[in-house]
Amino acid sequence: MIEKIISELQRVIDKERVLWRKTDMMTYAYDASFATQLEPKEPEAVVIPLSTDEVQACVQLANKYQVPLYPRGAATGQTGGAVPIKGGIVLDMSKMDRIIEVDDENFQVIVEPGIIQANLNAALKKYGLFFPPDPGSSKMCTVGGMISNNSSGLRAVKYGVTRQYVLGLEIVLPTGEVIVTGGEKSRALKSVSGYDLAHLMIGSEGTLGIVTRIRLKLLPLPPARGIVLCSFPKIEQAIEGVRAVYHSGIIPSAIEIMDIYATRAANKMRPDLNLPETEALLLFEVDGNKDIVALQVKTISEALKSHTDYVKFSDDPEQCENLWQSRKIVGAAVGNLKPGGIRVYGGEDICVPFSRLPEAIRRIHEITNSYNIVCGIYGHVGDGNLHTAPIIDINNQQEVEKAKQMIEEIHHLAIELGGTTTAEHGVGIVRAPYMEIEHGQALDVMRRLKKTLDPNNILNPGKMALPT
Amino acid sequence: MIEKIISELQRVIDKERVLWRKTDMMTYAYDASFATQLEPKEPEAVVIPLSTDEVQACVQLANKYQVPLYPRGAATGQTGGAVPIKGGIVLDMSKMDRIIEVDDENFQVIVEPGIIQANLNAALKKYGLFFPPDPGSSKMCTVGGMISNNSSGLRAVKYGVTRQYVLGLEIVLPTGEVIVTGGEKSRALKSVSGYDLAHLMIGSEGTLGIVTRIRLKLLPLPPARGIVLCSFPKIEQAIEGVRAVYHSGIIPSAIEIMDIYATRAANKMRPDLNLPETEALLLFEVDGNKDIVALQVKTISEALKSHTDYVKFSDDPEQCENLWQSRKIVGAAVGNLKPGGIRVYGGEDICVPFSRLPEAIRRIHEITNSYNIVCGIYGHVGDGNLHTAPIIDINNQQEVEKAKQMIEEIHHLAIELGGTTTAEHGVGIVRAPYMEIEHGQALDVMRRLKKTLDPNNILNPGKMALPT
Repeated sequence: MIEKIISELQRVIDKERVLWRKTDMMTYAYDASFATQLEPKEPEAVVIPLSTDEVQACVQLANKYQVPLYPRGAATGQTGGAVPIKGGIVLDMSKMDRIIEVDDENFQVIVEPGIIQANLNAALKKYGLFFPPDPGSSKMCTVGGMISNNSSGLRAVKYGVTRQYVLGLEIVLPTGEVIVTGGEKSRALKSVSGYDLAHLMIGSEGTLGIVTRIRLKLLPLPPARGIVLCSFPKIEQAIEGVRAVYHSGIIPSAIEIMDIYATRAANKMRPDLNLPETEALLLFEVDGNKDIVALQVKTISEALKSHTDYVKFSDDPEQCENLWQSRKIVGAAVGNLKPGGIRVYGGEDICVPFSRLPEAIRRIHEITNSYNIVCGIYGHVGDGNLHTAPIIDINNQQEVEKAKQMIEEIHHLAIELGGTTTAEHGVGIVRAPYMEIEHGQALDVMRRLKKTLDPNNILNPGKMALPT
Repeated sequence: MIEKIISELQRVIDKERVLWRKTDMMTYAYDASFATQLEPKEPEAVVIPLSTDEVQACVQLANKYQVPLYPRGAATGQTGGAVPIKGGIVLDMSKMDRIIEVDDENFQVIVEPGIIQANLNAALKKYGLFFPPDPGSSKMCTVGGMISNNSSGLRAVKYGVTRQYVLGLEIVLPTGEVIVTGGEKSRALKSVSGYDLAHLMIGSEGTLGIVTRIRLKLLPLPPARGIVLCSFPKIEQAIEGVRAVYHSGIIPSAIEIMDIYATRAANKMRPDLNLPETEALLLFEVDGNKDIVALQVKTISEALKSHTDYVKFSDDPEQCENLWQSRKIVGAAVGNLKPGGIRVYGGEDICVPFSRLPEAIRRIHEITNSYNIVCGIYGHVGDGNLHTAPIIDINNQQEVEKAKQMIEEIHHLAIELGGTTTAEHGVGIVRAPYMEIEHGQALDVMRRLKKTLDPNNILNPGKMALPT
């Protein structure tokens, strides 16, 4: 049957944008998740649409033939969210990547979903504006993908998550209709007219609709930044340090933590950083007006001085970049913790209540030690969001099995501590087993909504513990 | 039949909390809207629940007898959102007003929906925390009502809207099930696990569920504030002044505008304010650390100096309060613009694109002049959100009819300028006629969602242009 569908697709979409060869299919079989690296799942066809009409045509065909449709951005996801686990068609949105209009006068921009976060911000720079949510993958990930996962990243502590910047979406529904949320012709910065359907779509991981156009709120680009780096013998002291900064009246743009293993990894990659290898390293970033940044850096340093005697700070752009290096390289550096090992993504995105961060970090260490797997931990401490990075030999089947079990323990730990298995990367297939535990009866409501909007279960089926 | 329902209600709820006498019903027949002041609609019974179980029992009974159920907070709304336009039962949530737990260690609080915004913030003060969204009615409105309308107010320009602070909700669904959004046992500050159902509920005006418990994110209370008051001969200059402040690297906590009539009204009430009666008065508020506030106030004043020569500023608490007076009294002061007149709420909440604010204000003046009705205009200029305050003699039937037509013109103007009829007060019955124009096909999706969650159309029927 797939041949018939492909030939119908080729009638509405240029042939070179309808793929079906085995070699092409292989590249669409995985994302950055450990799970799909171990078990890739190929689609039967891939379509690369260039317009809303083409997306709509694909959705209509998928409904006609009852074949699954998997929307995909840059596949930087870590949960299998964009992987075609039931075969069918992948809709590769990466070529719908235009900036339709920079409406700088109204602090907004209209884009297509395939645009990469960093490219968008590069284009906005000359207007003195920016789109704040800043995931670690900002140089690769698409804005459409960020909306599907409600991504956040380093600067959520001050600027919040993707959700806060979405003023309107054009969406192709699973049944083929096209709607616009937030007012069909609106350029308003605020509205409470009707249910804000964008907020149901955001974070729904492509299961309720395909975003084809996005209206984003922008903020004035802060002209300056400052960094404070500090080190604490005990994790508990670091947490108290964060509280002290908050109560000094400053909300930093980022507050990052690195555990002793993450710090060690950074030192290994860049010995010149010469970071103290204590239980916790903290990095504060502030931004804004130049004079105010200088004052913030000074105030934060003073607030920290009763909690640690290791504080470095700067508001000079070059020195800031140096201080920030440890955080910038940590994602790559952790791989060095085990010669020949690679970092796998799993249990990498838990969130715990702020007060339980010390307990969470200590217990993750206990778990990883019990499996004899080396892990670095870093993350967005202001949100309670920890990135655990296990380094394993992926060719050692025994170690792979151990890592899988260990990841499960880390997920359960997050829930036990009053947290969640995922703060920013999403559910996909990797966190689906925890949906019932996290949400109880609310999961039934999610399933009812899915069934209402996607009666044929066409869009991204098999994800998020929704009906299959 | 209502007698039968009342007697059943009295079986599960204390008799003194089940009301049905005519005099009681009259007080539940209106809110602050012009529409329901003109045409109040009485319920047949009122229940004042004290627990989730009692709310659930009411919902079950309403389904059993197919009788409408109208949840109500403090009825400070201006759209008829809480008014029982089809009779039935009002659920008065104002006595479910407890603070269940201040979890200050985790920057959150668990409350019941009936708590008043100002009471919540008063209780949070000793923890050095606050719940930022700050509607004009903060001393009267309930947090549950704020969630139903996704309220915002003065400080949205920096702190955003109610939506951003909702971590989780306990909700009694229209079919009687109780769910918890955002993780049943979670105290995490961030989560992307599953559809975030809270965000479908927020702003749904009590049509999709009854909120019975709320988990809110809190921020550290800023220790200081500063105010800059400035005046501009032309509205266009005021708008350029706001841009200049943004590009100085500062996001004020409030940016308020007052037109010449609003300014005149403030002077009438408080001649000592002695405000210059120009086309636009702006008030900037900044907050944060004391030293940083001083610097912000200075920076803003300097940024404004090339746009106007009338700038007053302070970071002294007492002087700040004086400068802020004009904005504080304006809502009451506008009534003085016409002897014997009262302010009516209608067309009072439009939002236009930032760049079209001067045009919007001028055209509202043209409209109100053409009807010979005096209006003051003030609002949250950073969001493009204008509060138009018509002052009329409500006993003059001709003037009432003129005001109705004028309000309709103002709503249409907002849409024509690329804005919305409502930025923060909601749809209710007052903006229902504009839902189709604003949302097109998306309104059908809203209706499908309503039908899915509320198949018997029990909850707040007849509102938001949903099925009746």
